[in-house]
Amino acid sequence: MTDLRTVTVATTPSYPVHIGDGAHAASTDILRQASALIADERVHELHGASLALGDLPLHTLPQGEAAKTLAHLEATLDFLCSERLDRDATIVVLGGGAATDLGGLAASMYLRGVAWIASPTTLLAMVDASVGGKTAVNLRSGKNLAGTFHQPIAVVADTRTIQTLPAEEYASGLGEVLKTALIEGEESLSFLESNTGGLLERDANLLTEVVHACVSTKARIVASDPNEAGDRKALNLGHTFGHAIEQVAGPGAIPHGICVAAGCGLAISAAAAAGILTDSTLAERYRALAAALGLPSDLASLRASTGLALSADALLSAMSHDKKARAGTPRFVLPCSAGVLELDIELDVAALLA
Amino acid sequence: MTDLRTVTVATTPSYPVHIGDGAHAASTDILRQASALIADERVHELHGASLALGDLPLHTLPQGEAAKTLAHLEATLDFLCSERLDRDATIVVLGGGAATDLGGLAASMYLRGVAWIASPTTLLAMVDASVGGKTAVNLRSGKNLAGTFHQPIAVVADTRTIQTLPAEEYASGLGEVLKTALIEGEESLSFLESNTGGLLERDANLLTEVVHACVSTKARIVASDPNEAGDRKALNLGHTFGHAIEQVAGPGAIPHGICVAAGCGLAISAAAAAGILTDSTLAERYRALAAALGLPSDLASLRASTGLALSADALLSAMSHDKKARAGTPRFVLPCSAGVLELDIELDVAALLA
Repeated sequence: MTDLRTVTVATTPSYPVHIGDGAHAASTDILRQASALIADERVHELHGASLALGDLPLHTLPQGEAAKTLAHLEATLDFLCSERLDRDATIVVLGGGAATDLGGLAASMYLRGVAWIASPTTLLAMVDASVGGKTAVNLRSGKNLAGTFHQPIAVVADTRTIQTLPAEEYASGLGEVLKTALIEGEESLSFLESNTGGLLERDANLLTEVVHACVSTKARIVASDPNEAGDRKALNLGHTFGHAIEQVAGPGAIPHGICVAAGCGLAISAAAAAGILTDSTLAERYRALAAALGLPSDLASLRASTGLALSADALLSAMSHDKKARAGTPRFVLPCSAGVLELDIELDVAALLA
Repeated sequence: MTDLRTVTVATTPSYPVHIGDGAHAASTDILRQASALIADERVHELHGASLALGDLPLHTLPQGEAAKTLAHLEATLDFLCSERLDRDATIVVLGGGAATDLGGLAASMYLRGVAWIASPTTLLAMVDASVGGKTAVNLRSGKNLAGTFHQPIAVVADTRTIQTLPAEEYASGLGEVLKTALIEGEESLSFLESNTGGLLERDANLLTEVVHACVSTKARIVASDPNEAGDRKALNLGHTFGHAIEQVAGPGAIPHGICVAAGCGLAISAAAAAGILTDSTLAERYRALAAALGLPSDLASLRASTGLALSADALLSAMSHDKKARAGTPRFVLPCSAGVLELDIELDVAALLA
């Protein structure tokens, strides 16, 4: 077991994020409050035992995005009813971002809101979905189009679960790690550049440190803007491009964080095109770092590795219907340099997608 | 058109409730903000035109409680997507409490929350559901077991719509009016006692005054406790009994407010049994007032009028699973006198249900 690290998310009320190899076993005081467990079925097989919840009522979800439907929401709510849980209940949700999105939504709606503890088990969920209280289901028209804001009372991120992730899911998490470093600034970017080997090996201490750094960044931004009215938009760096790629590729074809990695590369190019990129070395540094981690930083490499067309027209159309669009015009978060962002940029990006 | 009355609900942010015969026509400034209309299909036929929303995108819901399913929630969310509404959208919801519960929930979840305007069209919805931001769907296990708190940006209650209500639905609204008078106090109770004739005739000016009074009471309580942590429980007077009756009778068998009217009578009896009833005239006054308005005030009259058994065992079982129960023990809001309540009373009420 490595040392546990804790980040406090200073929302109202605040909550702790406990991070580390062995965090499940070290969090029995928190987990003891649990009334029920909602878990990704595959993750539960692998890591349910380390939660040590005994014979707590369990509801399993199908793996990954398949869980994020209103039908699974209803089944989850029916489960909570059938266990006769009252307003004092605390729900533990174990799994990747899809499980925490769906389980958190169920907790936010059951009896108009009960407490929940997120236990994210993917690098992506640890650095992104599990902190900030966004919950969601997908609709026919796209991902995450319905949901709520419902902060958990605690997050327990046992980085040991990262060791069992398939390579592509781990790479997806690294995409959000890259994004977070671009938001945080030079020191974070340099740290990743110096540790690509350890990241590829999934070094336990390094993972704890990286998750801690990313959660710290996200916690700082979320606390300043819990409901995404302003500053929190920074977290959408690379996401207008990334979501469009993800949607055009089709459900599940390219993992979210891999799309975000390419999206961040495109955001740097867009910043250059908009004339706001002040650090002329950023594009090449980002390309090299992404490549070292096996991640795409442009559409060409993504098209080559996936064999998908990802046409400019389809991407532009997807962006005009983005959740963040206003009156059909997409909005971009663009970097001027590592750590310095411009939010809400409108820009014609057709040339960048050719 | 009668004079319009306005109540401000001092939540954060605050919002106005415009009340009166002709309130639709008098609220064009507010309704002009609308991006889409969600409406009970029957109510839309009767009263959609007076909203004067032109050819705004419309999604209709089946009449009454049938709308409050996750399947209709999904259809409503899909409609909002298909109209490509963005985060600046404002949804108008027209109909009774079922429509505003479902439409308000859709607004609270679409893109994690867009603005909505409630236009309640039943007396019950005007005095109860439309103010306070509670939204809901029903689950297999019972009514309103899932939902959110999402305050509207405005409520437009055109009391003219009350004229077209079926007698039973109007009576149901009067049940909540009685409950509100018991909460508010002596003056409200006396006012109703002096105006039973006008209420039965649905006098336009009187309806505006009564809805205004009830909304004022509810607004005051909701503003002091938006998420039902304390004082707001007062609004549940008669509801532990009422919900049990409603559930045991079966879906739609006895309208909500009629169950609440009987529930308030039972709450007065329970207060007497608990030794906290300080006004010994209250039981008889309540019985007489309810009878004058054609409402039940005890189980005997309700059993007689409906032909339903409503057995004590079934009612007790339903109460132990009430949304407000803790660890299977029901909690009661009981009146000491008109305007003076005790919240959170635990009491063995079996003898009252015989």
